[in-house]
Amino acid sequence: MNKEKPSIPQGTRDFGPEKMARRNYIFGVIRNVFEKFGFLPLETPAMENLSVLTGKYGDEGDQLLYKILNSGDFLAKTTIEDLSRGYKNVLPKIASKGLRYDLTVPFARYVVMNRHEIAFPFKRYQIQPVWRADRPQKGRYREFYQCDADVVGTGSLICEAENIAMINEVFATLGIEDYEIKLSNRKILKGITEVIGAPGKENALAVAIDKLEKSGRERVFGELTAAGFESAALEKLLPFMELKGSNAEKLDQLNRMLSGSEAGQEGISELMEVMDHVRHFGLKQDHINLDVTLARGLNYYTGTIFEVKALGSRITGSLSGGGRYDDLTGVFGMEGVSGVGFSFGVDRIYDVLEELNAFPGEELISTKVMIVNFDLSVSGHGLELLSMLRRAGISSEIYPDPVKLKKQMSYANKKGIPYVLMAGTREIEAGRYGLKNMRTGVQEQLTIEEIIGMFADA
Amino acid sequence: MNKEKPSIPQGTRDFGPEKMARRNYIFGVIRNVFEKFGFLPLETPAMENLSVLTGKYGDEGDQLLYKILNSGDFLAKTTIEDLSRGYKNVLPKIASKGLRYDLTVPFARYVVMNRHEIAFPFKRYQIQPVWRADRPQKGRYREFYQCDADVVGTGSLICEAENIAMINEVFATLGIEDYEIKLSNRKILKGITEVIGAPGKENALAVAIDKLEKSGRERVFGELTAAGFESAALEKLLPFMELKGSNAEKLDQLNRMLSGSEAGQEGISELMEVMDHVRHFGLKQDHINLDVTLARGLNYYTGTIFEVKALGSRITGSLSGGGRYDDLTGVFGMEGVSGVGFSFGVDRIYDVLEELNAFPGEELISTKVMIVNFDLSVSGHGLELLSMLRRAGISSEIYPDPVKLKKQMSYANKKGIPYVLMAGTREIEAGRYGLKNMRTGVQEQLTIEEIIGMFADA
Repeated sequence: MNKEKPSIPQGTRDFGPEKMARRNYIFGVIRNVFEKFGFLPLETPAMENLSVLTGKYGDEGDQLLYKILNSGDFLAKTTIEDLSRGYKNVLPKIASKGLRYDLTVPFARYVVMNRHEIAFPFKRYQIQPVWRADRPQKGRYREFYQCDADVVGTGSLICEAENIAMINEVFATLGIEDYEIKLSNRKILKGITEVIGAPGKENALAVAIDKLEKSGRERVFGELTAAGFESAALEKLLPFMELKGSNAEKLDQLNRMLSGSEAGQEGISELMEVMDHVRHFGLKQDHINLDVTLARGLNYYTGTIFEVKALGSRITGSLSGGGRYDDLTGVFGMEGVSGVGFSFGVDRIYDVLEELNAFPGEELISTKVMIVNFDLSVSGHGLELLSMLRRAGISSEIYPDPVKLKKQMSYANKKGIPYVLMAGTREIEAGRYGLKNMRTGVQEQLTIEEIIGMFADA
Repeated sequence: MNKEKPSIPQGTRDFGPEKMARRNYIFGVIRNVFEKFGFLPLETPAMENLSVLTGKYGDEGDQLLYKILNSGDFLAKTTIEDLSRGYKNVLPKIASKGLRYDLTVPFARYVVMNRHEIAFPFKRYQIQPVWRADRPQKGRYREFYQCDADVVGTGSLICEAENIAMINEVFATLGIEDYEIKLSNRKILKGITEVIGAPGKENALAVAIDKLEKSGRERVFGELTAAGFESAALEKLLPFMELKGSNAEKLDQLNRMLSGSEAGQEGISELMEVMDHVRHFGLKQDHINLDVTLARGLNYYTGTIFEVKALGSRITGSLSGGGRYDDLTGVFGMEGVSGVGFSFGVDRIYDVLEELNAFPGEELISTKVMIVNFDLSVSGHGLELLSMLRRAGISSEIYPDPVKLKKQMSYANKKGIPYVLMAGTREIEAGRYGLKNMRTGVQEQLTIEEIIGMFADA
């Protein structure tokens, strides 16, 4: 038996009761909004076949996949020769499964495997952990939750507007008021490459311009030059990076600047349609900021893209983001499945709520009443009271042992239980119990009906 | 890019929307009861260090642990010589993490790591998947959820009575009425070995007698003989296996039969105290069946043990079970932590509810209304209606594309959406919309306020 001090793997976390209450609060708000918008839950296994995962996240992603050793004698299929040829050669012979890296590829796999049973357009949400063998650092974990919602099987731009509506509703419910939804369209990026004389280079432009905020203009231009953009092209790119004014004004300017590009025009008209739907939803539009320098690194986006950041916060990463893709499942042999998906970053939202001090307080404490345990002669009565409280739906507990009152009170305090009920011999006789408000210290003598009534009113 | 038909690993499952709704219903009931009884949530990472997991589940358990390959060049620390000495020798050099096998060991690890912050007695619940490299077969999966609740840091038998109360409440809420809670105490098993002349053999007795129901008396006796039980001992064991009557009658008989054993007397008095607490909780006791042949295979139980089965069902496995242990955390160097824990088997409960046809119907369907999409000229109005429904808290959606009505209706049908709202040019002018009840086929013309009112009343 190993008696060393136990530990958890680097980059992973335990979530104790207090963190769980706060995380469940965030998940609950997101889940409610997803369901209110007609999205249905899906869960896929943590383990996927490596044939499903490999090659979907680029070479770097393949490196970051956690691989699971085949069970039993995993070396059975290998020869000493294999083993001497290096780990990449050995890998496929000793591991056939891995942990999921995101929720998108498992979702695509699910859609393909269940294409005949699914009612398209398929609106699914999925809230599950993913695993990445990344270098752990502040705010980056090896195990973390993703919260995705996708609609597949429709090209309707109503879906994009609904994403924006969901983001608004989640943030409004959580009490996050100061945020910005950057909105753009990959076709505009394509249009830009066309009118600046660098056609076909939209992926290189997307990858480089994605770093604008982090690395600054000079570095982005450096990267673009390295990718073969002429200096004339960069000069023509500049006005796009400096667009100013209201969203309507920006659209106006873009319309002129991209008049020579069909893709650009399409991108603009899609943006306008999305804004039109947003208007019909009756949403405030001041959170939306058209920003053609938004790129969203991933190559698979083909239309609308958006990303959400908190304003005036030290949390600079995005809290949410997504976009439209034309081909989710082609890699598994099912072509033409267009859709739009987005996700919430729960760890970052948690940090923002903490910064804003916006978590609800007592509401998150589930146990409302603790009954003091005096001794066995009266604890039977305590169990009866407990039963009455619980039947009334009030979360409550009795301290299990008849230890000193001070110890019991300190337990209630530590657990944040707001009320303590005392039922000693005298209280039982009188039929009125001492109820102590742990925050104010005030104690009242009340009947059990009065106590239950108090919580029913709350 | 790999375009073969994608698949999921053997023994794992996807849970699509319908299954998820039903599973979430079960999880929700269990979670509510846990919280009503003062248990707080905990989540631990899927990956644990192998040093934490190994040696906790016996040799067979170690074999069934999923091990995760170290990232990068996992062969870097191995020599060809290591590799030729077999996989068991290689394992510690290429894998340092594994997937959790149950929730008990991670919980023990958490308690030890956080002993200074935790308010003891610590009541935690944990609902998370676990992984076992078992041979997949009907009803046995390689990835499945466990739902555990444990109290540690108290020897109070109130905890046992509360477990029984929670089981009663979960099953009553789910509508499972016909079930049996087998109740016993490991000390009675110890007492039996003493009075039948086989002292010190209670673990062998527990392991053998655990199979009584499955394998029959002859096989159990065979196993006991092999374990060194004399035939005189087996003869004396027989009356314990044939105890009849009410629980009180059985306790009476046991009291006489175990009069010569201190452990046995202690077991009986603990059982009586548990029953006494149960009575104070005002619980019906007809579900409880004292059964001294109950053993619960696991060695770590030291006091009360219990197990729940559905009666008159083809689901024969246990739906819930647990017991008291004296030493949860000793293996990690923290001695004297007594506690009691139990868990619900969600997959089996699911099967029972399916058998009983006891899942709620429409309640589990989250989307209540689908708005038909006629065409872009009226869909703007549709979005406004949608927004009003959602603001009233009604889960609703609009079909994203203006396709044929038939296709839209078939989508609503397939998704089980109970109401479809039609807002064409004429309805918009009249301010009364067609609302079709998809189950009855009846269609009414109603204002949006009337429609919202309908759901508020429901």
